[in-house]
Amino acid sequence: MWQLYHFPLCPFSRKVRLALGEKGIAYDLLRENPWEGREEFFALNPTGKTPVLRHSEKDVVLIDSQAICEYFEETVDKTPLILGTAANRAEIRRLTALFDESFFADVTNPILQEKMKKRIIYRAAPDSGLLRETIRLLHEHLDYMDWLIDNRRWLAGAQLSLADFAAAAQISVVDYLGGVDWRGHEGAHGWYRVMKSRPSFRPLLLDKMEGLPPPRHYSDVNA
Amino acid sequence: MWQLYHFPLCPFSRKVRLALGEKGIAYDLLRENPWEGREEFFALNPTGKTPVLRHSEKDVVLIDSQAICEYFEETVDKTPLILGTAANRAEIRRLTALFDESFFADVTNPILQEKMKKRIIYRAAPDSGLLRETIRLLHEHLDYMDWLIDNRRWLAGAQLSLADFAAAAQISVVDYLGGVDWRGHEGAHGWYRVMKSRPSFRPLLLDKMEGLPPPRHYSDVNA
Ligand SMILES: N[C@@H](CCC(=O)N[C@@H](CS)C(=O)NCC(=O)O)C(=O)O
Ligand SMILES: N[C@@H](CCC(=O)N[C@@H](CS)C(=O)NCC(=O)O)C(=O)O
Repeated sequence: MWQLYHFPLCPFSRKVRLALGEKGIAYDLLRENPWEGREEFFALNPTGKTPVLRHSEKDVVLIDSQAICEYFEETVDKTPLILGTAANRAEIRRLTALFDESFFADVTNPILQEKMKKRIIYRAAPDSGLLRETIRLLHEHLDYMDWLIDNRRWLAGAQLSLADFAAAAQISVVDYLGGVDWRGHEGAHGWYRVMKSRPSFRPLLLDKMEGLPPPRHYSDVNA
Repeated sequence: MWQLYHFPLCPFSRKVRLALGEKGIAYDLLRENPWEGREEFFALNPTGKTPVLRHSEKDVVLIDSQAICEYFEETVDKTPLILGTAANRAEIRRLTALFDESFFADVTNPILQEKMKKRIIYRAAPDSGLLRETIRLLHEHLDYMDWLIDNRRWLAGAQLSLADFAAAAQISVVDYLGGVDWRGHEGAHGWYRVMKSRPSFRPLLLDKMEGLPPPRHYSDVNA
Protein backbone atom coordinates (compact mmCIF):
# COMPACT_ATOMS: atom_id res chain seq x y z
CA MET A 1 0.00 0.00 0.00
CA TRP A 2 1.16 3.54 -0.75
CA GLN A 3 1.64 5.90 2.18
CA LEU A 4 1.60 9.66 1.72
CA TYR A 5 3.51 11.84 4.19
CA HIS A 6 1.61 15.12 4.16
CA PHE A 7 -0.11 17.80 6.21
CA PRO A 8 -3.67 18.87 5.39
CA LEU A 9 -2.77 22.31 3.98
CA CYS A 10 0.30 21.29 1.93
CA PRO A 11 -0.68 22.29 -1.63
CA PHE A 12 1.79 19.85 -3.24
CA SER A 13 0.40 16.94 -1.21
CA ARG A 14 -3.06 18.05 -2.35
CA LYS A 15 -1.92 17.98 -5.98
CA VAL A 16 -0.70 14.40 -5.49
CA ARG A 17 -3.91 13.40 -3.67
CA LEU A 18 -6.00 14.74 -6.55
CA ALA A 19 -3.89 12.92 -9.15
CA LEU A 20 -4.01 9.65 -7.18
CA GLY A 21 -7.76 10.08 -6.70
CA GLU A 22 -8.33 10.61 -10.43
CA LYS A 23 -6.23 7.57 -11.22
CA GLY A 24 -8.00 5.41 -8.66
CA ILE A 25 -4.89 4.61 -6.61
CA ALA A 26 -5.43 3.86 -2.93
CA TYR A 27 -3.09 5.25 -0.27
CA ASP A 28 -2.88 5.85 3.46
CA LEU A 29 -2.22 9.28 4.87
CA LEU A 30 0.62 9.77 7.34
CA ARG A 31 0.76 13.12 9.06
CA GLU A 32 4.05 15.00 8.77
CA ASN A 33 4.73 18.59 9.86
CA PRO A 34 7.87 19.46 7.85
CA TRP A 35 8.54 22.54 10.02
CA GLU A 36 9.28 20.20 12.95
CA GLY A 37 12.32 18.87 11.06
CA ARG A 38 11.88 15.31 12.32
CA GLU A 39 15.12 13.34 11.88
CA GLU A 40 13.45 10.20 10.50
CA PHE A 41 11.71 12.35 7.90
CA PHE A 42 14.99 13.99 6.81
CA ALA A 43 16.45 10.48 6.49
CA LEU A 44 13.62 9.73 4.05
CA ASN A 45 13.80 13.06 2.17
CA PRO A 46 16.99 15.15 2.49
CA THR A 47 15.09 18.35 1.61
CA GLY A 48 12.68 17.71 4.50
CA LYS A 49 9.68 18.64 2.36
CA THR A 50 6.24 17.11 1.96
CA PRO A 51 4.90 15.26 0.00
CA VAL A 52 6.75 11.96 0.15
CA LEU A 53 5.02 8.84 -1.16
CA ARG A 54 6.35 5.51 0.00
CA HIS A 55 5.40 1.97 -0.87
CA SER A 56 5.88 -0.21 2.19
CA GLU A 57 6.30 -3.52 0.33
CA LYS A 58 7.95 -2.43 -2.92
CA ASP A 59 10.76 -0.41 -1.34
CA VAL A 60 9.98 2.63 -3.50
CA VAL A 61 10.17 6.19 -2.13
CA LEU A 62 8.86 8.93 -4.40
CA ILE A 63 9.68 12.56 -3.69
CA ASP A 64 8.58 15.85 -5.28
CA SER A 65 4.97 16.22 -6.39
CA GLN A 66 5.87 16.51 -10.07
CA ALA A 67 8.14 13.45 -10.01
CA ILE A 68 5.32 11.56 -8.25
CA CYS A 69 2.72 12.61 -10.83
CA GLU A 70 5.04 11.74 -13.74
CA TYR A 71 5.64 8.30 -12.18
CA PHE A 72 1.92 7.47 -12.11
CA GLU A 73 1.48 8.97 -15.57
CA GLU A 74 4.05 6.44 -16.80
CA THR A 75 2.79 3.44 -14.84
CA VAL A 76 -1.02 3.83 -14.75
CA ASP A 77 -3.10 4.21 -17.91
CA LYS A 78 -6.29 5.37 -16.22
CA THR A 79 -7.14 9.09 -16.64
CA PRO A 80 -4.05 10.50 -18.34
CA LEU A 81 -3.28 13.93 -16.90
CA ILE A 82 -0.26 14.88 -19.06
CA LEU A 83 -1.72 14.20 -22.46
CA GLY A 84 -1.89 15.20 -26.11
CA THR A 85 0.96 16.11 -28.45
CA ALA A 86 4.45 16.94 -27.15
CA ALA A 87 3.54 20.64 -27.44
CA ASN A 88 0.30 20.10 -25.46
CA ARG A 89 2.26 18.22 -22.82
CA ALA A 90 4.78 21.05 -22.63
CA GLU A 91 1.92 23.51 -22.10
CA ILE A 92 0.51 21.32 -19.30
CA ARG A 93 3.93 21.18 -17.64
CA ARG A 94 4.50 24.93 -18.10
CA LEU A 95 1.25 25.77 -16.31
CA THR A 96 1.76 23.12 -13.64
CA ALA A 97 5.16 24.69 -12.91
CA LEU A 98 3.60 28.18 -12.94
CA PHE A 99 1.18 27.18 -10.15
CA ASP A 100 3.69 25.04 -8.22
CA GLU A 101 6.32 27.74 -8.35
CA SER A 102 5.01 31.26 -9.04
CA PHE A 103 1.51 30.98 -7.55
CA PHE A 104 2.97 29.18 -4.53
CA ALA A 105 5.74 31.78 -4.02
CA ASP A 106 3.48 34.78 -4.66
CA VAL A 107 0.34 33.65 -2.86
CA THR A 108 0.06 30.25 -1.13
CA ASN A 109 3.36 30.30 0.73
CA PRO A 110 2.97 33.80 2.24
CA ILE A 111 -0.63 32.95 3.20
CA LEU A 112 0.50 29.68 4.84
CA GLN A 113 3.19 31.64 6.65
CA GLU A 114 0.96 34.46 7.86
CA LYS A 115 -2.28 32.58 8.51
CA MET A 116 -1.25 29.03 9.40
CA LYS A 117 2.32 29.05 10.77
CA LYS A 118 2.01 32.33 12.70
CA ARG A 119 -1.27 31.13 14.18
CA ILE A 120 -0.48 27.57 15.20
CA ILE A 121 3.31 27.53 15.52
CA TYR A 122 4.63 31.00 16.34
CA ARG A 123 1.47 32.38 17.96
CA ALA A 124 2.11 35.75 16.34
CA ALA A 125 -0.18 38.18 14.52
CA PRO A 126 -0.14 38.16 10.72
CA ASP A 127 1.53 41.06 8.89
CA SER A 128 -1.39 42.88 7.32
CA GLY A 129 0.72 44.82 4.81
CA LEU A 130 2.20 41.62 3.49
CA LEU A 131 -1.22 39.99 3.32
CA ARG A 132 -2.55 42.93 1.28
CA GLU A 133 0.28 42.57 -1.22
CA THR A 134 -0.37 38.82 -1.39
CA ILE A 135 -4.07 39.41 -2.16
CA ARG A 136 -3.03 41.81 -4.93
CA LEU A 137 -0.86 39.09 -6.47
CA LEU A 138 -3.67 36.54 -6.04
CA HIS A 139 -5.90 38.78 -8.17
CA GLU A 140 -3.22 39.06 -10.85
CA HIS A 141 -3.05 35.26 -10.99
CA LEU A 142 -6.85 35.02 -11.11
CA ASP A 143 -6.88 37.52 -14.00
CA TYR A 144 -4.51 35.24 -15.89
CA MET A 145 -6.72 32.22 -15.13
CA ASP A 146 -9.80 34.14 -16.34
CA TRP A 147 -7.96 34.80 -19.58
CA LEU A 148 -7.00 31.14 -19.98
CA ILE A 149 -10.56 29.98 -19.28
CA ASP A 150 -11.93 32.54 -21.72
CA ASN A 151 -9.77 31.06 -24.45
CA ARG A 152 -9.74 27.36 -23.62
CA ARG A 153 -11.99 24.70 -22.21
CA TRP A 154 -9.54 23.86 -19.40
CA LEU A 155 -6.46 25.75 -18.18
CA ALA A 156 -3.93 24.06 -20.47
CA GLY A 157 -6.20 23.42 -23.47
CA ALA A 158 -9.07 21.26 -24.65
CA GLN A 159 -8.53 18.54 -22.03
CA LEU A 160 -8.66 18.42 -18.27
CA SER A 161 -5.04 18.00 -17.15
CA LEU A 162 -2.55 18.09 -14.31
CA ALA A 163 -2.41 21.88 -14.70
CA ASP A 164 -6.04 22.11 -13.49
CA PHE A 165 -5.28 19.95 -10.45
CA ALA A 166 -2.06 21.81 -9.60
CA ALA A 167 -3.96 25.12 -9.76
CA ALA A 168 -6.97 23.85 -7.79
CA ALA A 169 -4.65 22.41 -5.12
CA GLN A 170 -3.04 25.83 -4.53
CA ILE A 171 -6.36 27.69 -4.61
CA SER A 172 -8.03 25.27 -2.21
CA VAL A 173 -5.39 26.10 0.44
CA VAL A 174 -5.92 29.84 -0.04
CA ASP A 175 -9.69 29.30 0.12
CA TYR A 176 -9.34 27.28 3.34
CA LEU A 177 -7.30 30.05 4.94
CA GLY A 178 -9.83 32.82 4.53
CA GLY A 179 -11.57 32.53 1.25
CA VAL A 180 -11.00 33.81 -2.23
CA ASP A 181 -12.91 36.92 -3.23
CA TRP A 182 -14.11 35.82 -6.65
CA ARG A 183 -15.78 39.10 -7.64
CA GLY A 184 -14.60 40.03 -11.12
CA HIS A 185 -13.33 36.50 -11.76
CA GLU A 186 -16.39 34.68 -13.12
CA GLY A 187 -14.28 32.51 -15.43
CA ALA A 188 -11.92 31.25 -12.77
CA HIS A 189 -14.76 30.91 -10.27
CA GLY A 190 -16.84 28.72 -12.60
CA TRP A 191 -13.79 26.58 -13.30
CA TYR A 192 -13.04 26.18 -9.54
CA ARG A 193 -16.64 25.13 -8.80
CA VAL A 194 -16.34 22.39 -11.42
CA MET A 195 -13.01 21.23 -9.97
CA LYS A 196 -14.41 21.22 -6.41
CA SER A 197 -17.31 19.01 -7.41
CA ARG A 198 -15.10 16.18 -8.71
CA PRO A 199 -15.10 13.08 -6.49
CA SER A 200 -11.29 13.30 -6.17
CA PHE A 201 -11.73 16.65 -4.39
CA ARG A 202 -14.09 15.32 -1.71
CA PRO A 203 -11.44 14.06 0.78
CA LEU A 204 -9.62 17.41 0.55
CA LEU A 205 -12.76 19.36 1.38
CA LEU A 206 -13.35 17.25 4.50
CA ASP A 207 -9.77 17.43 5.80
CA LYS A 208 -9.14 19.83 8.66
CA MET A 209 -6.08 21.48 10.14
CA GLU A 210 -6.40 21.31 13.92
CA GLY A 211 -7.05 24.66 15.64
CA LEU A 212 -7.74 26.27 12.29
CA PRO A 213 -11.29 25.64 11.08
CA PRO A 214 -12.07 26.55 7.45
CA PRO A 215 -14.70 29.17 6.60
CA ARG A 216 -18.23 27.81 6.09
CA HIS A 217 -18.29 28.10 2.30
CA TYR A 218 -15.00 26.19 1.89
CA SER A 219 -16.49 22.72 1.49
CA ASP A 220 -19.66 23.91 -0.29
CA VAL A 221 -19.26 22.83 -3.90
CA ASN A 222 -21.78 25.46 -5.03
CA ALA A 223 -20.06 28.42 -3.34
CA MET B 1 15.58 27.35 -35.73
CA TRP B 2 15.18 27.34 -31.94
CA GLN B 3 15.92 30.56 -30.08
CA LEU B 4 16.78 30.55 -26.38
CA TYR B 5 16.03 33.65 -24.30
CA HIS B 6 18.63 33.55 -21.55
CA PHE B 7 21.35 35.41 -19.67
CA PRO B 8 24.81 33.89 -19.25
CA LEU B 9 24.49 33.15 -15.52
CA CYS B 10 20.90 31.82 -15.50
CA PRO B 11 21.31 28.25 -14.14
CA PHE B 12 18.05 27.03 -15.70
CA SER B 13 19.08 28.31 -19.13
CA ARG B 14 22.39 26.49 -18.60
CA LYS B 15 20.53 23.27 -17.79
CA VAL B 16 18.60 23.61 -21.08
CA ARG B 17 21.77 24.45 -23.02
CA LEU B 18 23.49 21.33 -21.67
CA ALA B 19 20.49 19.13 -22.53
CA LEU B 20 20.23 20.62 -26.05
CA GLY B 21 23.97 20.21 -26.49
CA GLU B 22 23.86 16.54 -25.47
CA LYS B 23 20.95 15.93 -27.82
CA GLY B 24 22.66 17.72 -30.70
CA ILE B 25 19.95 20.35 -31.18
CA ALA B 26 21.05 23.67 -32.64
CA TYR B 27 19.74 26.98 -31.28
CA ASP B 28 20.46 30.68 -31.30
CA LEU B 29 20.97 32.61 -28.09
CA LEU B 30 18.92 35.74 -27.44
CA ARG B 31 19.98 37.83 -24.49
CA GLU B 32 17.26 38.57 -21.93
CA ASN B 33 17.73 40.20 -18.52
CA PRO B 34 14.56 39.13 -16.68
CA TRP B 35 15.12 41.75 -13.96
CA GLU B 36 14.47 44.47 -16.55
CA GLY B 37 10.86 43.25 -16.86
CA ARG B 38 10.66 43.91 -20.61
CA GLU B 39 7.03 44.06 -21.73
CA GLU B 40 7.54 41.95 -24.86
CA PHE B 41 9.16 39.28 -22.73
CA PHE B 42 6.24 39.22 -20.29
CA ALA B 43 3.94 38.84 -23.28
CA LEU B 44 5.91 35.72 -24.19
CA ASN B 45 6.17 34.35 -20.63
CA PRO B 46 3.72 35.69 -18.01
CA THR B 47 6.12 34.76 -15.18
CA GLY B 48 8.85 36.88 -16.80
CA LYS B 49 11.47 34.21 -16.16
CA THR B 50 14.26 32.80 -18.28
CA PRO B 51 14.67 30.37 -20.00
CA VAL B 52 12.13 30.57 -22.83
CA LEU B 53 12.74 28.52 -25.96
CA ARG B 54 10.92 29.57 -29.08
CA HIS B 55 10.76 28.06 -32.53
CA SER B 56 10.41 30.85 -35.06
CA GLU B 57 8.82 28.77 -37.83
CA LYS B 58 6.86 26.17 -35.88
CA ASP B 59 5.02 28.64 -33.62
CA VAL B 60 6.05 26.72 -30.49
CA VAL B 61 7.02 28.51 -27.27
CA LEU B 62 8.45 26.33 -24.52
CA ILE B 63 8.70 27.64 -20.96
CA ASP B 64 10.22 26.25 -17.77
CA SER B 65 13.49 24.35 -17.97
CA GLN B 66 11.94 21.06 -16.87
CA ALA B 67 9.05 21.30 -19.36
CA ILE B 68 11.63 22.09 -22.06
CA CYS B 69 13.81 19.09 -21.16
CA GLU B 70 10.79 16.74 -21.01
CA TYR B 71 9.72 18.00 -24.47
CA PHE B 72 13.04 17.06 -26.06
CA GLU B 73 13.10 13.79 -24.12
CA GLU B 74 9.80 12.94 -25.80
CA THR B 75 10.67 14.16 -29.28
CA VAL B 76 14.38 13.36 -29.73
CA ASP B 77 15.78 9.85 -29.26
CA LYS B 78 19.44 10.84 -29.11
CA THR B 79 21.06 10.66 -25.63
CA PRO B 80 18.12 9.95 -23.33
CA LEU B 81 18.52 11.94 -20.12
CA ILE B 82 15.45 10.71 -18.21
CA LEU B 83 15.98 6.99 -18.56
CA GLY B 84 15.60 3.56 -17.02
CA THR B 85 12.63 2.12 -15.14
CA ALA B 86 9.80 4.30 -13.84
CA ALA B 87 11.51 4.25 -10.42
CA ASN B 88 14.86 5.31 -11.97
CA ARG B 89 13.09 8.10 -13.81
CA ALA B 90 11.44 9.23 -10.58
CA GLU B 91 14.86 9.33 -8.91
CA ILE B 92 16.25 11.43 -11.79
CA ARG B 93 13.31 13.85 -11.50
CA ARG B 94 13.61 13.98 -7.69
CA LEU B 95 17.26 15.02 -7.87
CA THR B 96 16.69 17.40 -10.77
CA ALA B 97 14.00 19.11 -8.66
CA LEU B 98 16.32 19.12 -5.64
CA PHE B 99 18.96 21.09 -7.58
CA ASP B 100 16.47 23.31 -9.44
CA GLU B 101 14.63 24.15 -6.26
CA SER B 102 16.58 23.58 -3.03
CA PHE B 103 20.13 24.13 -4.29
CA PHE B 104 18.95 27.19 -6.24
CA ALA B 105 17.07 28.65 -3.25
CA ASP B 106 19.81 27.84 -0.71
CA VAL B 107 22.88 28.67 -2.78
CA THR B 108 22.68 29.86 -6.40
CA ASN B 109 19.96 32.46 -5.97
CA PRO B 110 21.51 34.24 -2.95
CA ILE B 111 24.90 34.18 -4.69
CA LEU B 112 23.39 35.64 -7.88
CA GLN B 113 21.69 38.28 -5.73
CA GLU B 114 24.77 39.23 -3.70
CA LYS B 115 27.50 38.85 -6.30
CA MET B 116 25.85 39.53 -9.65
CA LYS B 117 22.78 41.72 -9.11
CA LYS B 118 24.27 43.89 -6.35
CA ARG B 119 27.39 44.37 -8.45
CA ILE B 120 26.01 45.11 -11.89
CA ILE B 121 22.47 46.35 -11.18
CA TYR B 122 22.25 47.88 -7.69
CA ARG B 123 25.93 48.81 -7.32
CA ALA B 124 25.79 47.81 -3.67
CA ALA B 125 28.15 45.79 -1.49
CA PRO B 126 27.31 42.14 -0.85
CA ASP B 127 26.05 41.13 2.60
CA SER B 128 28.93 39.10 4.02
CA GLY B 129 26.86 37.43 6.75
CA LEU B 130 24.39 36.17 4.19
CA LEU B 131 27.22 34.96 1.95
CA ARG B 132 28.75 33.03 4.84
CA GLU B 133 25.46 31.26 5.52
CA THR B 134 25.13 30.52 1.79
CA ILE B 135 28.60 28.94 1.74
CA ARG B 136 27.64 26.81 4.73
CA LEU B 137 24.59 25.55 2.83
CA LEU B 138 26.72 24.97 -0.29
CA HIS B 139 28.93 22.64 1.76
CA GLU B 140 25.89 20.75 3.06
CA HIS B 141 24.77 20.21 -0.55
CA LEU B 142 28.28 19.13 -1.55
CA ASP B 143 28.31 16.64 1.35
CA TYR B 144 25.12 15.12 -0.03
CA MET B 145 26.64 14.97 -3.52
CA ASP B 146 29.77 13.28 -2.12
CA TRP B 147 27.50 10.68 -0.54
CA LEU B 148 25.61 10.11 -3.79
CA ILE B 149 28.84 9.77 -5.78
CA ASP B 150 30.26 7.37 -3.19
CA ASN B 151 27.27 5.11 -3.69
CA ARG B 152 26.51 5.49 -7.37
CA ARG B 153 28.29 5.98 -10.65
CA TRP B 154 26.36 9.18 -11.44
CA LEU B 155 24.16 11.33 -9.19
CA ALA B 156 20.88 9.54 -9.89
CA GLY B 157 22.25 6.02 -10.44
CA ALA B 158 24.17 3.94 -12.94
CA GLN B 159 23.55 6.27 -15.89
CA LEU B 160 24.45 9.84 -16.69
CA SER B 161 21.15 11.75 -16.52
CA LEU B 162 19.41 15.11 -16.40
CA ALA B 163 20.12 15.21 -12.64
CA ASP B 164 23.86 15.52 -13.40
CA PHE B 165 23.25 18.37 -15.84
CA ALA B 166 20.85 20.19 -13.51
CA ALA B 167 23.42 19.97 -10.71
CA ALA B 168 26.37 20.99 -12.90
CA ALA B 169 24.38 23.95 -14.25
CA GLN B 170 23.82 25.32 -10.73
CA ILE B 171 27.39 24.65 -9.62
CA SER B 172 28.89 26.27 -12.71
CA VAL B 173 27.16 29.56 -11.81
CA VAL B 174 28.47 29.40 -8.24
CA ASP B 175 31.94 28.59 -9.58
CA TYR B 176 31.80 31.53 -12.01
CA LEU B 177 30.89 33.89 -9.18
CA GLY B 178 33.86 33.19 -6.98
CA GLY B 179 34.76 29.59 -7.05
CA VAL B 180 33.79 26.53 -5.09
CA ASP B 181 36.15 25.46 -2.34
CA TRP B 182 36.30 21.74 -3.06
CA ARG B 183 38.48 20.79 -0.09
CA GLY B 184 36.86 17.82 1.64
CA HIS B 185 34.66 17.11 -1.39
CA GLU B 186 36.81 14.84 -3.54
CA GLY B 187 33.80 12.86 -4.78
CA ALA B 188 31.81 15.85 -5.95
CA HIS B 189 34.96 17.53 -7.32
CA GLY B 190 35.90 14.51 -9.45
CA TRP B 191 32.33 14.34 -10.76
CA TYR B 192 32.32 18.09 -11.64
CA ARG B 193 35.63 17.80 -13.53
CA VAL B 194 34.12 15.03 -15.65
CA MET B 195 30.99 17.11 -16.30
CA LYS B 196 33.06 20.19 -17.24
CA SER B 197 35.05 18.26 -19.81
CA ARG B 198 32.00 17.21 -21.83
CA PRO B 199 31.70 18.97 -25.19
CA SER B 200 28.22 20.23 -24.24
CA PHE B 201 29.84 22.24 -21.42
CA ARG B 202 32.30 24.08 -23.65
CA PRO B 203 30.02 26.98 -24.73
CA LEU B 204 29.05 27.62 -21.09
CA LEU B 205 32.69 27.87 -20.01
CA LEU B 206 33.37 30.48 -22.69
CA ASP B 207 30.31 32.61 -21.99
CA LYS B 208 30.90 35.82 -20.04
CA MET B 209 28.72 38.19 -18.07
CA GLU B 210 29.79 41.73 -18.96
CA GLY B 211 31.58 43.61 -16.16
CA LEU B 212 31.92 40.41 -14.18
CA PRO B 213 34.88 38.30 -15.33
CA PRO B 214 35.07 34.74 -13.98
CA PRO B 215 38.03 33.58 -11.88
CA ARG B 216 40.92 32.06 -13.82
CA HIS B 217 40.25 28.43 -12.89
CA TYR B 218 36.61 28.63 -13.99
CA SER B 219 37.08 27.45 -17.57
CA ASP B 220 39.97 25.12 -16.80
CA VAL B 221 38.59 21.60 -17.13
CA ASN B 222 41.37 20.21 -14.94
CA ALA B 223 40.81 22.59 -12.01
N1 LIG C 1 8.71 20.86 -5.38
C1 LIG C 1 8.20 20.28 -4.16
C2 LIG C 1 7.79 21.35 -3.16
C3 LIG C 1 7.36 20.80 -1.82
C4 LIG C 1 7.27 21.87 -0.73
O1 LIG C 1 7.71 23.02 -0.89
N2 LIG C 1 6.67 21.49 0.39
C5 LIG C 1 6.55 22.40 1.54
C6 LIG C 1 5.19 22.28 2.21
S1 LIG C 1 3.91 23.01 1.28
C7 LIG C 1 7.55 22.03 2.61
O2 LIG C 1 7.62 20.89 3.01
N3 LIG C 1 8.35 23.02 3.09
C8 LIG C 1 9.28 22.84 4.14
C9 LIG C 1 8.83 23.47 5.43
O3 LIG C 1 7.70 24.01 5.47
O4 LIG C 1 9.62 23.44 6.38
C10 LIG C 1 7.00 19.41 -4.56
O5 LIG C 1 6.37 19.73 -5.57
O6 LIG C 1 6.74 18.40 -3.89
N1 LIG D 1 11.30 26.78 -12.89
C1 LIG D 1 11.90 27.75 -13.77
C2 LIG D 1 12.75 28.74 -12.99
C3 LIG D 1 13.31 29.85 -13.86
C4 LIG D 1 13.90 31.00 -13.02
O1 LIG D 1 13.72 31.09 -11.80
N2 LIG D 1 14.62 31.92 -13.71
C5 LIG D 1 15.19 33.08 -13.05
C6 LIG D 1 16.57 33.39 -13.58
S1 LIG D 1 17.76 32.25 -12.98
C7 LIG D 1 14.38 34.31 -13.38
O2 LIG D 1 14.09 34.57 -14.55
N3 LIG D 1 13.96 35.08 -12.34
C8 LIG D 1 13.23 36.29 -12.51
C9 LIG D 1 14.11 37.51 -12.22
O3 LIG D 1 15.31 37.34 -11.98
O4 LIG D 1 13.55 38.62 -12.26
C10 LIG D 1 12.74 26.98 -14.79
O5 LIG D 1 13.21 25.89 -14.45
O6 LIG D 1 12.87 27.44 -15.92
